Amino acid sequence: MELWYSESAKSGLKLNIRIKSHLLHRETEFQTVDVFETQDCGKMLVIDGCVMLTEMDEFVYHECITHVPLQLLKSPRKVLIVGGGDGGSAREVLKYPSVEEVVMVELDREVIQVSKEIFPGLSGAFKDSRLRVVIQDGAGFVKRKQGLFDLIIIDSTDPVGPGEVLFSREFYRDCHTLLNAPGILTAQTESPFDYTCRNKIKRIYRDLGSVFKSVRMYLGNIPTYPFGLWSFALASDQVDPLRDEAGSGFLPEGLRCYNRAVAKSAFGLPNFIREIIHE
Amino acid sequence: MELWYSESAKSGLKLNIRIKSHLLHRETEFQTVDVFETQDCGKMLVIDGCVMLTEMDEFVYHECITHVPLQLLKSPRKVLIVGGGDGGSAREVLKYPSVEEVVMVELDREVIQVSKEIFPGLSGAFKDSRLRVVIQDGAGFVKRKQGLFDLIIIDSTDPVGPGEVLFSREFYRDCHTLLNAPGILTAQTESPFDYTCRNKIKRIYRDLGSVFKSVRMYLGNIPTYPFGLWSFALASDQVDPLRDEAGSGFLPEGLRCYNRAVAKSAFGLPNFIREIIHE
Repeated sequence: MELWYSESAKSGLKLNIRIKSHLLHRETEFQTVDVFETQDCGKMLVIDGCVMLTEMDEFVYHECITHVPLQLLKSPRKVLIVGGGDGGSAREVLKYPSVEEVVMVELDREVIQVSKEIFPGLSGAFKDSRLRVVIQDGAGFVKRKQGLFDLIIIDSTDPVGPGEVLFSREFYRDCHTLLNAPGILTAQTESPFDYTCRNKIKRIYRDLGSVFKSVRMYLGNIPTYPFGLWSFALASDQVDPLRDEAGSGFLPEGLRCYNRAVAKSAFGLPNFIREIIHE
Repeated sequence: MELWYSESAKSGLKLNIRIKSHLLHRETEFQTVDVFETQDCGKMLVIDGCVMLTEMDEFVYHECITHVPLQLLKSPRKVLIVGGGDGGSAREVLKYPSVEEVVMVELDREVIQVSKEIFPGLSGAFKDSRLRVVIQDGAGFVKRKQGLFDLIIIDSTDPVGPGEVLFSREFYRDCHTLLNAPGILTAQTESPFDYTCRNKIKRIYRDLGSVFKSVRMYLGNIPTYPFGLWSFALASDQVDPLRDEAGSGFLPEGLRCYNRAVAKSAFGLPNFIREIIHE
């Protein structure tokens, strides 16, 4: 007998992942959370029928969304993570001794609970006294206009359902207000190969561009995400990764993906992707 | 009713591609050739149960394996393509007016025939008088030790079955003998994310390194290949893409992937990939 996980196909491509066992299924107030033990990808977290992470390749996603901006800041002290309840982004950010406080605003406390129960490699961050968890919707949180951050990481689900509001111009404006100078916002922005997402991606970059002086897309390879290629936005008024050198300060040891060459390379976009965001 | 193409799973991940119709099935002297009309990826060529190309993303593969080396040569005149019977690599190489002759050594004339019948976007190359097709095994051809090439492109199937000999040290030595100075060899070298391939990849780079002074890996994103991330080797005695600037000469118009930023970026390897090839 073989068990294969398969996402409902939005497009004519879908990835199947072989499963050993279904470890957990929970209906939370906001969404459905599942955890599987896979044959070759370690444990896998699925929310609302979409792969959020597998132990095999989560390091690429989390190193991309954190170290690329962190290495462009001299001495980051305060970081806001919107979403990211699995703890992976917090784990990476907390590797920097200069970081004094990480505020994680997560809508669904059950995601954090599941990570603590099942993903020790991700949830270690929750033991760090510098991490403060706020259970709230991110869009509501950023309206408060007090407390400034050097970096805001939008580690959200896809722009449908509860995550949709985290891809709006108003949300980006509120984030902008909460940024120190030189502050950076990074966000996951879907797969540029996914033709069902191209208009969304175009709108995200247009909206970010109406709020921030510099908005750049960068790429990372995540085999268990649709199309295997993922994009991230890096937005700032003062930092431009195509102009500014990364990595003048501290670089954590033991990273499995990030190095300075990868960081620079991630911003090199194929022509068909440039066209999507009208670079 | 839904029809989904799925490769026999070597690993616990597999890509499924939705099919509209099965256009062709042929048992040739060497292998099995299938063509499908897919829902979202255009037509798809499958050899021995492995996706060779889809019309959706073949441009990434073919632009990577050709323009990356061609842009490092000032005025390439003679190019050898080993394999590549679909015509995609030849199509790209023939965009350079400096190219006087392309020799394509393809084992299986049926692959060329199928491309001519079904893939006009690829097989246009066969109408170009600068292309000379030799139906022979590549390993036998390169033993002839006469006629020199500026670029040798190993556009082979995977290192199992008929393609295996094209990944041997002896074959690389024979290719080396056929290269002009400054000559370049490029080859497709599987997915570095595929843990079932890592020892093979390590061996390929070790063998190339025993023949050429400089051997570099570079990457391209091809969603319909396993793990979505593909690697290529660029080997040369005189050219080193980490040192030499690409693109002093002619650049074809209308490329959908290649630009100078992408070419430079392709050589930026994540730490876990560097470790595979001991860079």
